[in-house]
Amino acid sequence: MTVTRLIKMGVATILLILPQTVSAQASATTSLDIGFIFTTFMFLVSGFLVFFMAAGFAMLEAGLVRSKNVTMQLTKNLSLFSLASLAYYILGYNLMYPGDAWTISNVLGALSITALEPVGLEGAQPDLTYASVGSDFFFQLMFCAAAASIVSGALAERIRLWPFLVFVVLLTAVIYPIQASWKWGGGFLDAMGFQDFAGSTVVHSVGGWAALTGAIILGPRLGKYKGGKVNSFPGSNLALATLGTFILWMGWFGFNGGSQLYMDTAGNVADISRIFANTNTAAAAGAVAALLLTQLLYKKPDLTMILNGALAGLVSITAEPLTPSLVEATLIGAFGGAIVVFAIPMLDRFKIDDVVGAIPVHLFAGIWGTIAVVFTNDAANLLTQIYSIVIVGAFVCMTSTVVWIALKFTTGLRVDEEAEIDGLDKTELGMEAYPEFAAL
Amino acid sequence: MTVTRLIKMGVATILLILPQTVSAQASATTSLDIGFIFTTFMFLVSGFLVFFMAAGFAMLEAGLVRSKNVTMQLTKNLSLFSLASLAYYILGYNLMYPGDAWTISNVLGALSITALEPVGLEGAQPDLTYASVGSDFFFQLMFCAAAASIVSGALAERIRLWPFLVFVVLLTAVIYPIQASWKWGGGFLDAMGFQDFAGSTVVHSVGGWAALTGAIILGPRLGKYKGGKVNSFPGSNLALATLGTFILWMGWFGFNGGSQLYMDTAGNVADISRIFANTNTAAAAGAVAALLLTQLLYKKPDLTMILNGALAGLVSITAEPLTPSLVEATLIGAFGGAIVVFAIPMLDRFKIDDVVGAIPVHLFAGIWGTIAVVFTNDAANLLTQIYSIVIVGAFVCMTSTVVWIALKFTTGLRVDEEAEIDGLDKTELGMEAYPEFAAL
Amino acid sequence: MTVTRLIKMGVATILLILPQTVSAQASATTSLDIGFIFTTFMFLVSGFLVFFMAAGFAMLEAGLVRSKNVTMQLTKNLSLFSLASLAYYILGYNLMYPGDAWTISNVLGALSITALEPVGLEGAQPDLTYASVGSDFFFQLMFCAAAASIVSGALAERIRLWPFLVFVVLLTAVIYPIQASWKWGGGFLDAMGFQDFAGSTVVHSVGGWAALTGAIILGPRLGKYKGGKVNSFPGSNLALATLGTFILWMGWFGFNGGSQLYMDTAGNVADISRIFANTNTAAAAGAVAALLLTQLLYKKPDLTMILNGALAGLVSITAEPLTPSLVEATLIGAFGGAIVVFAIPMLDRFKIDDVVGAIPVHLFAGIWGTIAVVFTNDAANLLTQIYSIVIVGAFVCMTSTVVWIALKFTTGLRVDEEAEIDGLDKTELGMEAYPEFAAL
Repeated sequence: MTVTRLIKMGVATILLILPQTVSAQASATTSLDIGFIFTTFMFLVSGFLVFFMAAGFAMLEAGLVRSKNVTMQLTKNLSLFSLASLAYYILGYNLMYPGDAWTISNVLGALSITALEPVGLEGAQPDLTYASVGSDFFFQLMFCAAAASIVSGALAERIRLWPFLVFVVLLTAVIYPIQASWKWGGGFLDAMGFQDFAGSTVVHSVGGWAALTGAIILGPRLGKYKGGKVNSFPGSNLALATLGTFILWMGWFGFNGGSQLYMDTAGNVADISRIFANTNTAAAAGAVAALLLTQLLYKKPDLTMILNGALAGLVSITAEPLTPSLVEATLIGAFGGAIVVFAIPMLDRFKIDDVVGAIPVHLFAGIWGTIAVVFTNDAANLLTQIYSIVIVGAFVCMTSTVVWIALKFTTGLRVDEEAEIDGLDKTELGMEAYPEFAAL
Repeated sequence: MTVTRLIKMGVATILLILPQTVSAQASATTSLDIGFIFTTFMFLVSGFLVFFMAAGFAMLEAGLVRSKNVTMQLTKNLSLFSLASLAYYILGYNLMYPGDAWTISNVLGALSITALEPVGLEGAQPDLTYASVGSDFFFQLMFCAAAASIVSGALAERIRLWPFLVFVVLLTAVIYPIQASWKWGGGFLDAMGFQDFAGSTVVHSVGGWAALTGAIILGPRLGKYKGGKVNSFPGSNLALATLGTFILWMGWFGFNGGSQLYMDTAGNVADISRIFANTNTAAAAGAVAALLLTQLLYKKPDLTMILNGALAGLVSITAEPLTPSLVEATLIGAFGGAIVVFAIPMLDRFKIDDVVGAIPVHLFAGIWGTIAVVFTNDAANLLTQIYSIVIVGAFVCMTSTVVWIALKFTTGLRVDEEAEIDGLDKTELGMEAYPEFAAL
Repeated sequence: MTVTRLIKMGVATILLILPQTVSAQASATTSLDIGFIFTTFMFLVSGFLVFFMAAGFAMLEAGLVRSKNVTMQLTKNLSLFSLASLAYYILGYNLMYPGDAWTISNVLGALSITALEPVGLEGAQPDLTYASVGSDFFFQLMFCAAAASIVSGALAERIRLWPFLVFVVLLTAVIYPIQASWKWGGGFLDAMGFQDFAGSTVVHSVGGWAALTGAIILGPRLGKYKGGKVNSFPGSNLALATLGTFILWMGWFGFNGGSQLYMDTAGNVADISRIFANTNTAAAAGAVAALLLTQLLYKKPDLTMILNGALAGLVSITAEPLTPSLVEATLIGAFGGAIVVFAIPMLDRFKIDDVVGAIPVHLFAGIWGTIAVVFTNDAANLLTQIYSIVIVGAFVCMTSTVVWIALKFTTGLRVDEEAEIDGLDKTELGMEAYPEFAAL
């Protein structure tokens, strides 16, 4: 949402309600309330959908790791969401909105704890052309937490719990909010005309860069590239992984739909409908692309590729789910799905061990989606898009690298060899996810 | 939704807003927007609930097949939904609305790709008494995909992936939309007064007939009826199957509730509330009927029967979830649940091998539900209901049979014996769902 | 929701719409419709979220029992929800609203079957300042069913199916509604000023007391306290348990948010936003508290404690999710999470065997949450809060004890030793949840 668009919307709303204000001034409050209620409720519904993506990530990742590391992956996912929920209100949320000028009051505001509007809005002067602060906070929090969820999958099966959680706190309290402010807080990328509707770059590539730097610094799992070849470590529960993908897919309707930011006019709700239809289409196209490509390349469809293809389709359409036609959404999503099929083996060639395919899905498809905006949205400029991708990437890579390395040389990042071989569940947590099922 | 009802609703809406139009013409647009926003958002919320039914079917079916076929069942479910999503916008959606007369322009319209309203409705003349095209498309797509999901469960554990997916494309692009147009597109069944609120016949029996013809042509699984008796192949994961049932149950609130098609008046939203309450009651009654009957008949409650009983209750109430009282909804749902308990062994007697019970649940309970409309809705006529069931059944059976047989004699429908014994996951996909859990 | 608040809200709404009523009387109906539609739809959305909590409980409990009892736990959860759905409309719902005076007509009303408003509200005089009866019924039903779900977890792995289900019917038809009427039906606890926004006491402690009496009367599982020590019986599937927790967490947004009971003004929707934000924060804080405490106490984080910590945070904030600031919600939730960490081993010391930790989560955190209201809501009085906790507890303990003992001496409550050792799935149901996975 650009500031310009924010202002435009406000004007449109005022124009719409103006006649009523004139003819029956006393009822204006109620009329204004209606748009406020619509948009606020839309944020709450979108927000619980995006919340559920935390469960989607947890199931996807728990299904794609080996059974000896499932409890750890579940613990990381529930803990990271919980810590993000606290870090974001204590610092992150306000840090995303430093305002246009770095005055002292703006800086103090950015560093303050989130305060919601008073009960019943009593004594408050709410922006009735938008939505309640609480609903905006709730919705934005879920995006921040999603960025952190992306990281946990890539680094699974060898990172220690506590250093990972320290990284999550810094990511959600500081790194994510600062770069998000550049676009969504009305910062310099927004001023340049950078277009990223729901966060292919601001959310997904951020999680992806953090995962990439982490994966490189952490190194691959023991035995992954042993003997000069890529050894496959199949996921322990593909039913869970599929469930996770479906949950993420559903959550994405809130992720992209809610990013319309307004549901107070026929035009806005029709736009949200376009977004729902395009989001679904791109996901379907990504899955179909992976289905066809794995059949062609490997003679057998590969379910984990199809799952990641659907997710890549979703990430690809996230930068611009509104302007494409259904056919364009199909192409954007299918290209995203294709990227995953080629990028997953490519990462292995560089010996970058990404357990669940998070880097191709969220980073590579995120970059593709951000660039693809120029095909359907005239407001987007290719150079600005690329510039913004690079700036955000450079910032996240630098800050993440500093944090990962600091952790590596203080607490240590990685479990010891014996723990990795025996599984993190037994050694780090003393609790197995499936204690009664005999492992082969 | 009959055309008559459509018109009636439109008139009611106009009457309601008329005074306001007179007293303050300029504000009429906004007032009209309100109903449009309500109904559109209702479609989007209902739509994501019905979307989630795809996950419900996937989990139900993955839980009820043997572990050696789980990856295949997951692959089929995700792929069928994705292909349906593309097929339906490329052809199916417009094919459902050929209009009342077969003029050239109507036919060309029916064969065209779905186009959504322009961004921000700019330059569009939306029907402000209804909802956005995008939301209607999104909602209707989910019904079409549900019909395809029904088929995959019945034919599990022996059908090859690609022929099944070809069938899905034809079902969702052509077969489903054509028959749906007869009722929901304002076609001849609708003109006759056929009542099918949310699709006991139009959706569930269609999936059921397609599954029945497929199951007969495909034949039973190896060993299922070996030695003159019915051999039980227990599902590999009843926790997943139960999760799938709960997800389907939740999705059904959108399925039936959204089929009210309007949420712009107090009467409409009160009707949606009736539908939610009746839908839940019928599901509960179906489950309780199966719980009691299996206790009485077999001395032990049977969880898979209870799950299917709940689903049968849901299918039964789908043809008319609005007019019944809670007591009537209980009876309709309970009878549906009872049908399943008796029909599942009956199908086995005919050596029709339906892996998950989809035919009793969706076809038999669908027929029952369509007939039961006459008990609570005076607008329904028993002969018209039966006639419509038969016409839709004949059409789907004929077209499905042609497709299944064509596939059988070209690509082949069934995996070879060795593959069926070893499991489709290993032989067809090379990927097991639970690779680490030792099978007994 | 107190009666006072109900009246206050009504007045506020009338004041808001009054000017419009005067200036354009004919349009007043439509304006009133808007608030009715908003609130009704909010109940339906909240209601399906709380419905999904039934799936959450089922997955949590299925994940925390041993694999030999999973089918039974699933059967109990689906059956209890279904029976509650019938019992509540046949008796429970109207029993919750006996009105202010025990006149004959009120008593007859309280004992009558629930009737929804007529189709299209034709001939009805709906309360347009509130919501449709159907939506209120749907929403309230889910609370009643949740109370019953709490019981099933605590008594798992040894209670027989049918006596448990008889208890569920009595709990949901009689025990829950009677005590709920004291507060939410405008009864004497409400008149005293008892504050329990969404049911820390009215729902969660009720389930908790019923579970506690049942656990004491039933006795611990065989071998649980054998040899003078507490033997651990690890849950069979922590991925399911985590999924269940995430589902419950999501459902809680509907549980607490919907309990605002109105969404017809900017103030109300802003309050619902506060509730969403506080509910999420308390859950996160409960999880983090359990994460930190188990690390400190046992040197290893304990996933099942973290899951129960999140749930305890949710129960704790349920009595007052509106008035706390985010910091206060953090403290309330964290304290709830801490209670669970200390209470679970404490129960074991008393040899009270609660399989999933339902008593600490729902009873102890429910009491804490009810008391904590006094810290943030000036309308709450500590003595009234304690008095209400005690009165509700005494009533539920007495009635539950009578029912449990009556069942014990008629049908018997507990499976025989052999059945318990072999598992309830094989002996009571003849159906295993994971028949192919070799148990260790």
